[in-house]
Amino acid sequence: MSDASPTAAVLIIGDEILSGRTADTNLNTIARFLSALGIDLMEARTVGDRPRQLIEALNALRATHDYVFTTGGIGPTHDDITADCVAEAFGVALPEHPDAVAILERRYGDQFNAARRRMARVPEGGTLIANPVTDAPGFQIGNVFVMAGVPKIMQAMLEDVAPRLRTGAIVHARTLKVVGVGEGEVAAPLAELAQAHRNLSFGSYPFGHGTVGEMGTNLVVRGRDAQAVQAAADALITTLGERGINVTLV
Amino acid sequence: MSDASPTAAVLIIGDEILSGRTADTNLNTIARFLSALGIDLMEARTVGDRPRQLIEALNALRATHDYVFTTGGIGPTHDDITADCVAEAFGVALPEHPDAVAILERRYGDQFNAARRRMARVPEGGTLIANPVTDAPGFQIGNVFVMAGVPKIMQAMLEDVAPRLRTGAIVHARTLKVVGVGEGEVAAPLAELAQAHRNLSFGSYPFGHGTVGEMGTNLVVRGRDAQAVQAAADALITTLGERGINVTLV
Repeated sequence: MSDASPTAAVLIIGDEILSGRTADTNLNTIARFLSALGIDLMEARTVGDRPRQLIEALNALRATHDYVFTTGGIGPTHDDITADCVAEAFGVALPEHPDAVAILERRYGDQFNAARRRMARVPEGGTLIANPVTDAPGFQIGNVFVMAGVPKIMQAMLEDVAPRLRTGAIVHARTLKVVGVGEGEVAAPLAELAQAHRNLSFGSYPFGHGTVGEMGTNLVVRGRDAQAVQAAADALITTLGERGINVTLV
Repeated sequence: MSDASPTAAVLIIGDEILSGRTADTNLNTIARFLSALGIDLMEARTVGDRPRQLIEALNALRATHDYVFTTGGIGPTHDDITADCVAEAFGVALPEHPDAVAILERRYGDQFNAARRRMARVPEGGTLIANPVTDAPGFQIGNVFVMAGVPKIMQAMLEDVAPRLRTGAIVHARTLKVVGVGEGEVAAPLAELAQAHRNLSFGSYPFGHGTVGEMGTNLVVRGRDAQAVQAAADALITTLGERGINVTLV
């Protein structure tokens, strides 16, 4: 489902995600953000606070996709290595950005120490991403957007990033819910429709497994042509109805 | 923090994660599961229902890590392509596994149709992973463990996987909480300690940003030598105390 729509990747950075200490929620936030802009999120990677791994992942992703969004590792402590790694990946210096210095001086006053100065460093050629929550900015360099890991700050940074992105045609989705019917019973008609409509995607997601409540399957038709999505959803309802399966539009 | 402990990677499979429809929770479950076994989770990737991408990611990960855990894409519908892709990645056939056929026949009786038969296919040389929730098994081939995407089923499958894994020395962690103190104030002493203890990892995680409640920083010392972790945590408490910063052990 790519058409000429922009593609994107997400790079989640931080030992705390891989150790299980922290459950990432940023990927889902970014995924929904990009969906709304018609940008196709193609893949995501999670890496630890290890420079080689981070640089290799970033270089692989930025070469392959129109946009890369990173989260995490831009604070003041020694384990915040994202800016250093991004500069190295791009082969540029990492000077203090005067606007970032001004923002942080304003926030911290006489507590603007050496550790906090680290947060003013931006790879040469980069521009700031505003942080209305705690001021310390993220930055954009080339097609890479470097954002905080704290979800509230990351979400606020996305607002500043949005106007910089080329958008694509929105992906339309219709969800059909079949209650009391397993995936195995709808698989054949679903596959037939998928075969016949190569420009649409058809997903099947069971729910209620092994619980006492209702079980069934959600069927999702997605595509950039709203009329085609609607027509395929209608066809699915019809063909399931012919097999005695009742469908609810969600 | 690798020592001779086994390493692992996670591969999350499914368009629904990348579209934002579903928020993945399996990565955190697996991360905590592996931590408890002393296995180092080194990276995670999320890919869509695209064979080339899935096969490339799987081959990259299984060549680099002791274990790979995949979630998603093993149901009965056309978009469940994981078994096909794993077989192709390993260069082996994908026959029906007799034990899987027996399990599914028992479950579905005369409703064991062609779509459901797809769930009995296991790459040649693979062994089954039990699914006590909905019966349809996952499988292991080589160092790759292929599990369901539905969290409840994935969690149950991990129970069957655990005894097959070589474990490592447990990673011990101490968390120190400093209230009312930002990361920038603890960064210098933390960096000094990190410099002095290369066999430990020191993480810094701010909390309460921009909220009306308390704000502060959690400092986490991690390592396989419990005494060294304890000693470093004590040293951190002392050095912060000398700077007038009070620490709570969490």
